[in-house]
Order: sequence, then C-alpha cells, then structure tokens
Amino acid sequence: MGDTAVGDTGTTMPLTVRMRRSPFWARSHAAGAKGYIVYNNMLLATNFASPEEDYRHLKAAVQVWDVGCERQIEIAGPDAARLVQMSTPRDLAKLRDDQCFYIPTVDRDGGMTNDPVLLRVDEDRYWISIASSDLMLFYKGIAAALNLDVSIREPDVAPLAIQGPKADDLARRIWGDQVLDIRFFRHRRVDVNGTAMILARSGYSVQGGYELYFEGIDGGDVLWDQLMEAGRDLDVRAGSPCLAERVEAGLLSYLSDITRDMTPFEAGLGRMCDIDRDTGCLGLAALRARRAPQRQVRPVEIAGEPLPPQGTFWPVTAGERPVGRISSSARAYDFGVNASIGLIDRSHWDPGTALTVHTSAGPREGIVKERFWGRKA
Amino acid sequence: MGDTAVGDTGTTMPLTVRMRRSPFWARSHAAGAKGYIVYNNMLLATNFASPEEDYRHLKAAVQVWDVGCERQIEIAGPDAARLVQMSTPRDLAKLRDDQCFYIPTVDRDGGMTNDPVLLRVDEDRYWISIASSDLMLFYKGIAAALNLDVSIREPDVAPLAIQGPKADDLARRIWGDQVLDIRFFRHRRVDVNGTAMILARSGYSVQGGYELYFEGIDGGDVLWDQLMEAGRDLDVRAGSPCLAERVEAGLLSYLSDITRDMTPFEAGLGRMCDIDRDTGCLGLAALRARRAPQRQVRPVEIAGEPLPPQGTFWPVTAGERPVGRISSSARAYDFGVNASIGLIDRSHWDPGTALTVHTSAGPREGIVKERFWGRKA
Repeated sequence: MGDTAVGDTGTTMPLTVRMRRSPFWARSHAAGAKGYIVYNNMLLATNFASPEEDYRHLKAAVQVWDVGCERQIEIAGPDAARLVQMSTPRDLAKLRDDQCFYIPTVDRDGGMTNDPVLLRVDEDRYWISIASSDLMLFYKGIAAALNLDVSIREPDVAPLAIQGPKADDLARRIWGDQVLDIRFFRHRRVDVNGTAMILARSGYSVQGGYELYFEGIDGGDVLWDQLMEAGRDLDVRAGSPCLAERVEAGLLSYLSDITRDMTPFEAGLGRMCDIDRDTGCLGLAALRARRAPQRQVRPVEIAGEPLPPQGTFWPVTAGERPVGRISSSARAYDFGVNASIGLIDRSHWDPGTALTVHTSAGPREGIVKERFWGRKA
Repeated sequence: MGDTAVGDTGTTMPLTVRMRRSPFWARSHAAGAKGYIVYNNMLLATNFASPEEDYRHLKAAVQVWDVGCERQIEIAGPDAARLVQMSTPRDLAKLRDDQCFYIPTVDRDGGMTNDPVLLRVDEDRYWISIASSDLMLFYKGIAAALNLDVSIREPDVAPLAIQGPKADDLARRIWGDQVLDIRFFRHRRVDVNGTAMILARSGYSVQGGYELYFEGIDGGDVLWDQLMEAGRDLDVRAGSPCLAERVEAGLLSYLSDITRDMTPFEAGLGRMCDIDRDTGCLGLAALRARRAPQRQVRPVEIAGEPLPPQGTFWPVTAGERPVGRISSSARAYDFGVNASIGLIDRSHWDPGTALTVHTSAGPREGIVKERFWGRKA
C-alpha cells in the first residue's frame, strides 16, 4: 500500500523501551553503524562505511555482526519435537544432533510463517533462530490448544556472526583448530570466557564463517573486544548483513522476498519439503495441493545504471501484463550488474525471458537469469 | 539488555520493502512527521511540531492520525467466536453487536500476547485491531491444531483516528449528526465516498474522538484531504498518538508498559478478566492461579526537571532493594510534573510511597500516586 520513491523518511531512528538491544549492540553502534532497520523489535545495522566498501571488505576480510535480532525460541519438554514438526514440512527425523536445520515454517494453508534455523541443543530441547515474525505465538497457540507437555520461552541468547574469507583465521585464534572440524551448517560447543556456548558454521552470507549463540546478557562487550583485538591484522571490522552480497547470492529475506502468502515451493525451497511422508506438519495437505507453483523466486538482472534503494515492491510486466514483482535489488559490484530477486509467474520465469521492471527510477529492462551471481556456499 | 542514554541512534529511518505503508502514510508524511517508530512493521509517527506543541494542540483542537499500524486480523467462519474466546479471559458473551471490545489476550500461562480491540463486523466475522505483536500466528496455531472451521487473514483495513475536543465537530461535517449517536466504544457504518465503513467512538487518547476502519488500498488521500479541508477553521492538523497525553492518562502501550510475561491483573486489567466462568479461554487456569498479583501498574511521579526521552526501562528501588521499573515517562505539561507508568511490587505500590527512580539523567525521587493525572474517558 502507499507509494514512495525515497529511500528514507528523513527522520531519525529513535531508541525506545519497546526496542530490545542485544549484548553486542552498544559495541556495534559505537563502531559506527550508519543506519538501522527494526527487525523483530530489535535494531539491525544496515551499513558502516558505505554499501560498496562494506561489500568489498566482507568479501576480502572478516566482519563481526550483531545479529541478536535473530531472536531465539526455546521449546523444551517431551512434546517439543512433535510441536516443532507441526510447524514445518521438513522431516525432523533427518535432523542430526550437531546440525543447523533451515526450516521453512508454514500455516495450515501452506503459507510461510517464518524461515528460521532450528538447533537441537539437548535431548527434547530446541532453539529456533527466527526471521522477522513472532513465530513463538504460533507454537504457543498449538501448545495451548492441544495441551502439549512443553515449555516455550525466549532464552537470553543472541547470535553473533563472524563472516568473511578470513573468518576461519579469526575463529582459530579464539577457539583453536577445533573450529575447522565444524562442517557447514553443523555446530559444537566452545568455551566463551568460561561458559560453553554453541558455535555454528553458518551465517547470512556466502563468504563463509560462523554464528556464535551467545548466552547471557553480560559479557558481550568483552567477547566483542577480544575478537577485534585478535583480528586486528586480519582487518576485522564491525559489519552487518550485506544487501548486495545476499541479493547477488540469492539469500532470501523474510517479509521481503518471502511473504506469508507464499509457499516454500514458491520461495524455491521445495527441497526442504518432505511432503510425501506423514510427518505431522499441519500444512501438509495444503502443501500437497500446492506443490506445483504458478510463480517462483527468480534472479532478475535489471539493465542500466545503478538503481536507488528499493522502498516498495517493483511491479514486473510483460508488455502490459503483470507477471511478478521485484522484492530486493542491489548493485552487484563484482559483476557490474543490477542484481535482483523476483517473484515471477510461471509463464515468464524461463531463463532469458525479457521483462519490464517498474523501478522507482522508471521502467527498465529485466532479464530472468539461470542462476544467481554470487557463489552459493 | 544493553544500555544507552541517548534518545535516538543518530541514523535515519529507512523505508524498506518489508515496511508496509497505510493508505494515509504519504499524506501524513507530507504533513511533516518529524519521527517514526516501527510498529507491526509499519511506520507510526511520533510527533509533528514539537512534543509540547502537539500535546497542547491535541487537547485544544482536533488531529487526524494515521494509525494503520493497528493492523487487523479477520477471523471468520462458524468457529470464529470460539477461537477468539480461546485467546482472551474477557467473556465474549457480553460483546454487543456495535461494541468495540478491549480484550487482553493471553497465552496458557496467562502472559499477555497483545491488548487489541475486538469488533464483530458481521455474523461470525470479527476484526481484531492489534497492538505490536503478530497475534495472528497464535490464532493460526490454534486453528490448525484443532482443525477449526475458520479463515484467518489480514484484510485491507487501516484505522484512521480523529482525536481531540473538536473531533465531534469535524466528524459531523463529514458524516452528519448521526456521529453523535455513537456512544463510547461503540460503532456504526458510515458512508465514505460511496463505501460503508465502520466508524467507532474510540482512540488512543482521552480527548475524545473516532477511529474509522478505512477499507481498501486506494482513496485514503481523498478522505485525508476532505478532513483537512472540512476542519480548516477548527485548526485540524496531522497528528499521532501523543506520549505525554497517554502517559498522564495512564493509557498503556504493549511491549513497553505491558510485556508478555505480565498477566492482565499485573497490567491493572483485572476488570476485563471473567475468570469465574468457563469461557474457554486457554489461559483460564493460569489466570485463576495468578489472580493476586505481586506487582502491578502504578502512576509514579518523578521529581525534578523534565527528563530525557526514555530508551530503556528505568529501575526503581527502595533503598538498595529493587521494587520495580518505569516503562514510560513524559512531561505532563498541563500538570507541571514528570508523569510515568511504573510496574511496582506489592510491598511498595501504596499511594504516597517514596521510591528512587534510576533515570538516564541520574537517580530521582519517585512517588506512587493514587491515580493518573489526565482525565480518563
């Protein structure tokens, strides 16, 4: 609804009681965050130097990101596994103890309610690291309705990401060579100033790196300073999820590229949907009926000069006919193109199809691509 | 978590795809909103002229507020009433057809999940006008778990508030004398440029006025302009919920004054809890066990000069002993005091009790008051 071409409101981002801050926020802010979005009622930095400089640095060195806005839901108790399974079509029987499980979550219509990462942190105890929606309320509703034997709460846990090609070097200096044994999307406990915490090889970039599930409300500043000190010669810097890097790599963002009316199939997450087995997912019947999507996420290259920051969906047409929308876009500096993430109708989603993208800077030619530009991890 | 004394981040508030804008946003923004908070992934203006000028104008004239961030949940179908009742201890049998029903909503522990306003807009069709949480996911969880015969969706409805002592005058010029027949927290349908829409005598101030449940995504600008034109000699202005006015009147804000660990009894909403009848509310057993709160919302006057904007809870102590927190505070200009909303332990909640409030400007004396300062509607 509404429409605007401007990239910001021209007003300042306030700090309010309703806005939770992570144990790393003060350090990250002091390091010079130049902008924020509000994500799960927390602050997520947008950039530090400039979009291009942050991008180039992320792809050359190592950054530390306050991603405490990836808030955690802890579900514990005898019915915990059953409850989590009800929310996702991905078969939890496949979840290994040390695995980070990316799970599309759905309602009974098959619409996506979130796209979190699930960890089993203990027997009958799970953490769900959420994208931007109050997914906890979905679990609370089910648990109350069915009188499940679980507790559901938000633990004092805040993810800290270490991302970039030199992330291994930095992590080794803090936790030793054991970090190299952690495979992609696996985790193990490491010592953080006297407390064993979960370190995962994961993160919202394709440059490689880790996410530490920091526990507690104190000591975030101490750890932050240790990382900055240990990585000085690696040119470690404060950073944040990088729009250009994630768009060129096709990393989706919930509420932008994935909306709650979309199925995982439409989001291109069909490989996460084990719908032929009766897992107990409450959206199973709907997903079976909707398994052949009529629209799907596609990489779209937009011709011409760099575009202004995107503040609304940009409509996509073929001639006069609406055939989709662009949900995220950015200059992919390393590739010299305007990369974007589109949701495109089946009739026009084949690679090579020429479309018109109605950007805030006017109509531009768009081309559906075979694959995203950045390397996938 | 974290700690800061500053009132804003020093960065600008961006506009992003993930941020929904109401049909009134462009007009409200053009009228000069000087700041925003993000509320339900929408923009809510904080002030237009200055906090004091907005306050004095609201109490003297009439303002039009874009409160589209009070997003709607529509629950429709044969099981709709049953589903809504599961979420709240307030007895829906008491809901009149033309009534706006303020309902604390709770999880099965009795913790508050939201504090919305419920309308029955039709037989078996309800709108829930939410405060800041994705309450829809709670309903979706229950409906999926119990296979209820309901549909749950967000309709294209955006509330527009008309608030202030001259709101009656302005509303009469648009909709005629029928508006005077609408009693407090009641509603009726009025014609809005050819469409019948719900007009309620309600709003997030105690100055009197209306909320129009505007339907559709187009035409918001036309209605806005009509209101501004019709109210020119009433000094109508764009406005927004006024911190000072709501704090002095004791209007609570979800995620600040009400947090999800609090029961309605702790929030001072016991009169909304019909817990002696088996309504079907899923939090009933917990609320019965927690009916005698050990802490509760109280007005607290904070001594001394005006205080800086509050960015975190301010701890409250008696001597060294922690006895509560201040969640909202503002200069109550008409009363010449620093008004605040506290959550105070039973041991220290009696009127006249002297406390210490640890503000970001240092410790100050606080006094528990008998009642809030502003008149309640």
